[in-house]
Amino acid sequence: MNFASDNWAGAAKEIAASLSDHSGGFSAAYGDSEFDRSVERRFNEIFEREVAVYFVGTGTAANSLSLSSMTRPGGFVFCHRESHLIEDECGAPEFFTSGARMSPIDGPMGRMDVEALGKKLAQFESIFVHHGQPMAVSVTQATEAGSVYSIDHLKQISQLTHDHGLKLHMDGARFANAMVRLGATPAEMTWKSGVDVLSFGATKNGCWCAEAIIFFDPDHAKQVPFIRKRAAQLFSKTRFITAQLDAYLKNDLWIQLASHANQMAQRLIVGIKASKNVTLAWPCESNEVFVTMPKLLAAELERAGVSFYPWPIPTWFAGVKSPEIGLYRLVTSFATTSKEVDDLIQRISG
Amino acid sequence: MNFASDNWAGAAKEIAASLSDHSGGFSAAYGDSEFDRSVERRFNEIFEREVAVYFVGTGTAANSLSLSSMTRPGGFVFCHRESHLIEDECGAPEFFTSGARMSPIDGPMGRMDVEALGKKLAQFESIFVHHGQPMAVSVTQATEAGSVYSIDHLKQISQLTHDHGLKLHMDGARFANAMVRLGATPAEMTWKSGVDVLSFGATKNGCWCAEAIIFFDPDHAKQVPFIRKRAAQLFSKTRFITAQLDAYLKNDLWIQLASHANQMAQRLIVGIKASKNVTLAWPCESNEVFVTMPKLLAAELERAGVSFYPWPIPTWFAGVKSPEIGLYRLVTSFATTSKEVDDLIQRISG
Amino acid sequence: MNFASDNWAGAAKEIAASLSDHSGGFSAAYGDSEFDRSVERRFNEIFEREVAVYFVGTGTAANSLSLSSMTRPGGFVFCHRESHLIEDECGAPEFFTSGARMSPIDGPMGRMDVEALGKKLAQFESIFVHHGQPMAVSVTQATEAGSVYSIDHLKQISQLTHDHGLKLHMDGARFANAMVRLGATPAEMTWKSGVDVLSFGATKNGCWCAEAIIFFDPDHAKQVPFIRKRAAQLFSKTRFITAQLDAYLKNDLWIQLASHANQMAQRLIVGIKASKNVTLAWPCESNEVFVTMPKLLAAELERAGVSFYPWPIPTWFAGVKSPEIGLYRLVTSFATTSKEVDDLIQRISG
Amino acid sequence: MNFASDNWAGAAKEIAASLSDHSGGFSAAYGDSEFDRSVERRFNEIFEREVAVYFVGTGTAANSLSLSSMTRPGGFVFCHRESHLIEDECGAPEFFTSGARMSPIDGPMGRMDVEALGKKLAQFESIFVHHGQPMAVSVTQATEAGSVYSIDHLKQISQLTHDHGLKLHMDGARFANAMVRLGATPAEMTWKSGVDVLSFGATKNGCWCAEAIIFFDPDHAKQVPFIRKRAAQLFSKTRFITAQLDAYLKNDLWIQLASHANQMAQRLIVGIKASKNVTLAWPCESNEVFVTMPKLLAAELERAGVSFYPWPIPTWFAGVKSPEIGLYRLVTSFATTSKEVDDLIQRISG
Repeated sequence: MNFASDNWAGAAKEIAASLSDHSGGFSAAYGDSEFDRSVERRFNEIFEREVAVYFVGTGTAANSLSLSSMTRPGGFVFCHRESHLIEDECGAPEFFTSGARMSPIDGPMGRMDVEALGKKLAQFESIFVHHGQPMAVSVTQATEAGSVYSIDHLKQISQLTHDHGLKLHMDGARFANAMVRLGATPAEMTWKSGVDVLSFGATKNGCWCAEAIIFFDPDHAKQVPFIRKRAAQLFSKTRFITAQLDAYLKNDLWIQLASHANQMAQRLIVGIKASKNVTLAWPCESNEVFVTMPKLLAAELERAGVSFYPWPIPTWFAGVKSPEIGLYRLVTSFATTSKEVDDLIQRISG
Repeated sequence: MNFASDNWAGAAKEIAASLSDHSGGFSAAYGDSEFDRSVERRFNEIFEREVAVYFVGTGTAANSLSLSSMTRPGGFVFCHRESHLIEDECGAPEFFTSGARMSPIDGPMGRMDVEALGKKLAQFESIFVHHGQPMAVSVTQATEAGSVYSIDHLKQISQLTHDHGLKLHMDGARFANAMVRLGATPAEMTWKSGVDVLSFGATKNGCWCAEAIIFFDPDHAKQVPFIRKRAAQLFSKTRFITAQLDAYLKNDLWIQLASHANQMAQRLIVGIKASKNVTLAWPCESNEVFVTMPKLLAAELERAGVSFYPWPIPTWFAGVKSPEIGLYRLVTSFATTSKEVDDLIQRISG
Repeated sequence: MNFASDNWAGAAKEIAASLSDHSGGFSAAYGDSEFDRSVERRFNEIFEREVAVYFVGTGTAANSLSLSSMTRPGGFVFCHRESHLIEDECGAPEFFTSGARMSPIDGPMGRMDVEALGKKLAQFESIFVHHGQPMAVSVTQATEAGSVYSIDHLKQISQLTHDHGLKLHMDGARFANAMVRLGATPAEMTWKSGVDVLSFGATKNGCWCAEAIIFFDPDHAKQVPFIRKRAAQLFSKTRFITAQLDAYLKNDLWIQLASHANQMAQRLIVGIKASKNVTLAWPCESNEVFVTMPKLLAAELERAGVSFYPWPIPTWFAGVKSPEIGLYRLVTSFATTSKEVDDLIQRISG
Repeated sequence: MNFASDNWAGAAKEIAASLSDHSGGFSAAYGDSEFDRSVERRFNEIFEREVAVYFVGTGTAANSLSLSSMTRPGGFVFCHRESHLIEDECGAPEFFTSGARMSPIDGPMGRMDVEALGKKLAQFESIFVHHGQPMAVSVTQATEAGSVYSIDHLKQISQLTHDHGLKLHMDGARFANAMVRLGATPAEMTWKSGVDVLSFGATKNGCWCAEAIIFFDPDHAKQVPFIRKRAAQLFSKTRFITAQLDAYLKNDLWIQLASHANQMAQRLIVGIKASKNVTLAWPCESNEVFVTMPKLLAAELERAGVSFYPWPIPTWFAGVKSPEIGLYRLVTSFATTSKEVDDLIQRISG
């Protein structure tokens, strides 16, 4: 029973098969083959406009190079206090931007509060060279707390962002999970809501290693080929990414994989709600379920072979009232089976 | 007939199969699984000592992060004038080292001349803060010219390097091809010859995307986990690299793949030597064959579907005496067939 | 009546004279003259041990290059939330350290709370590559709030810092003001309290432009000559700094200048305490006096030619209870006269 | 007899006096006073157009931050092989540009050959992401060899530079010496010849520490306030630079100081030409005189108290034919007296 993370899963079978299918023959290196081009063009269709697409190898690369394309000296990037940019990238965003500062914005449920963002941006309205200058805003969709920004929330943030002359980046490591939840099109959840640059993540949703940076205005991407190569993220046998994404985007596979992951999360929640010992910490809108339970129970589950992580308690969460209780994260993925979920439910309902 | 580059090939069938075999189930992310550990340990056996191993995604990453681990302010890295570090990495080594300078050392056949290196190092013997300071020496094995450093040559370079208090890095993008050529063990060609850090390349020799940085003294690698993560080179589903390397190192597959590539190069050379129109530019010691031929013939071959690249004329090569003649590179790989070689030979022998 | 900042003053007359005296003749450039050496040696006497001294041009340079000498990838520097490093250096510390993160530690009166620092450091006790690693702790003496760390407080911080294998940096932009306050020797307030590297500031206390980085263990400074030159902080006519510091350190001038500034602050406080309209916000322990007063009164004072700055309200200060009241900073310096202070007192006592 | 370097001199007496005159009173810090503004405006008059002016502390800072304002990922800066950028700045240009490469261009007399520059730029005409991209061209006026670019030469270089979509930087560490030599106006030698950004050096010509970056198109300087602050080059008591430059630019002092230095060089050359033992290596067009002489004689002169430096032999200079002969540099400055020159002449004419 593995609920540790969606990146503990391997590759979806269609994606594994696509890689095998493309392993023979010769093909122009460094993303210059017709196959590479054709998959890049698929993104134009998916996003309903001409976009510039750059494949990279990790979500950290997608995020860091997105920000690198917006670098300003002494720049501030505004993102949620618990965002991956702040918590999980070992200074990569700072490194690739020559020292930009990740400025934490608070907000419940892992989503930036619009008012809090507005207040912070207002502090930069007069130029004060000693402090630095705003550079970008970054939202995570779905968030690290398993919640999802509504289209309206995104539009409020993008409005504020653009009013301050900044660009809006979206960390879409779990893009498909959020999209499925909202029932929105890729276009609606991005440029139609004011997103300028997207880290399009596919790894967590069934690929081995396939991430893309999407620029909705290709004119802003002119330096990116050099930024990517200088960052050691241009792969010689790029088709190993292309082949993954080809299968991923074909026949709505990506939607199916994310739908499954989200459904498994909801199935789990039904069981949690029925449990006396485990409590749903807050609503799950994607594939990350957060629960509170006695630490003793958590230890027992681990001994029984259930994998999952304890989680730091967010500032906006007041549901842990005793030191014997812990907060835990349970993640489902394309590879989670109903049986696994039911087995876990059985264990916690006992 | 594809002789453009060894990275135009896909993945060897054993490697493709290994990836498929490992695509199911769950496994600790970020290189923390027992499978990851076991493949890392294989490197201890291969190199006959305890080494520290860090998987990364590209050769540029392996080289740049190796140098990043040796960074000194105002530092100079000494490498051959035609090295990949200087010619093909878009400033990545400079970027990851916060501005080290790649200092070109000349030498015939793509190999650094020991005396030239010694002269250059001597210029730094007295500290002169305005100019900067030496930081590392880097050799490429096999070289960009398809030649190979002899064990003795490596030892002379490492002696000089260590005498100046520096560390020796080896760019082993074509490590296996060189090893096969020399008939040397991995240990002999590296730490026994004084190499301190190795970029162990597997991508060009049949993997999709599998490179490793090897530290022969694990004590010098303490910061590398952070250097790698900060560089966005820590892959969540690391097992996609591990699975490749598992197959690569099993049953001497890597040796067989490189042997085949080298043999195809030698088979091609036999044909070239018999040709009146195409001339072997210099001896080939690995899987890159350099030839001169009339530009008209080159154009004709390309029209006939032979892929290969024109090549800039090295300073040490005097074999192009007319503007109608060009220098070209023909690369063989694990995927090159005897038939392809023979077809090309037939075309040039006509 | 100028209370805007101690860097609005010019140069003390002894320092101006010293510069004039040294303007003729020839002298080895780049800090290599005997005069440069002799002033460097003065620091050995002042600090009662052999130290390594590097002159630089700005406090930002002193702080950033101190941290640069301690750089670790993905590194965290722990400093007070209102420190100069965080609030006033436009990302210079992040830039020079290739992206270290300035981690804010809270504490009343502008001083880091030992317990808060301990809690934060404890978060890094297990290695978690995704988050990064601790790199240094930095205290500001005197603080941005005009307070001073006691020797005991410094020792508690250094103990904690060293227990975690880190080095302690002191931002001494107002070093002399703090020293005078404590009645401590330079040695007592630094290495005897566990400080490893000091930004020794002289600019705010009567020099034009004279800062020094002091390493109490010269062995840790080996790379600093290169770090400084690469940072464009090695001045060709270094004697213009040396001549300032020569006068500054001679006959305890620096002590006298700082004593005067501190006394002017205390004289001002006497007047403030007697005022009905202006309230001392918190005790002043150096030369920065913080007061609350009606915004209307502040505007009136400005119109009358009194220079001073409104100040952001620290999280630890609860003394502003109405939107009509503001927090303001009044800074005295070596150049502040009793008459100026008395004039201001008269205005606020009215 | 000091001919070591123009930065071994101190400050011209008018400049020293100006500093003393401005040492009292209060003045807005960080370059925000009316006095700072007025001196900045002087540059508009001097250059006959509106320019953006940024004071910095060292020539290395002026050069590095100029290039930083033009940074492109994987960028190449083309400059003469013996330029200060390449030989004397310890990697600062590389550091501040996040790893740009300084690409050496050859040419006799320390001046870039237009054809050689054109050839190098042509190599970048097709985009090749692996190699990087051109970023800027930088000329040094006067050059490190004491020669001066003619207006026509500058125009040829700027034409080529602009034709390739690049900006032209001028390192004017000895700007006044070159200007005096050419009899050109500041405008003619810069923007009228196609220079986009200038490092305006005053330190070597009689200031203590006063350099300025001049943008001839202020629109291209929008990020420079942040670039400068982040680089720790914004001085709190900026008026110490302003006061120097105020005197420097007043009553054509800068022209007089440079004229004197150049005249002293010419006076010295008359003596050299009459000497049997010392030979003028090449014509001097500013204040740096290069000579060849027996190493024994050089040693003798040093013992007699003459300060000067041996110099590495440029690739374009064939005048040293024996190992007993050395190349030496003799630099005059505003502070060099006729008597000193004559004393040296007497010594070498003996």
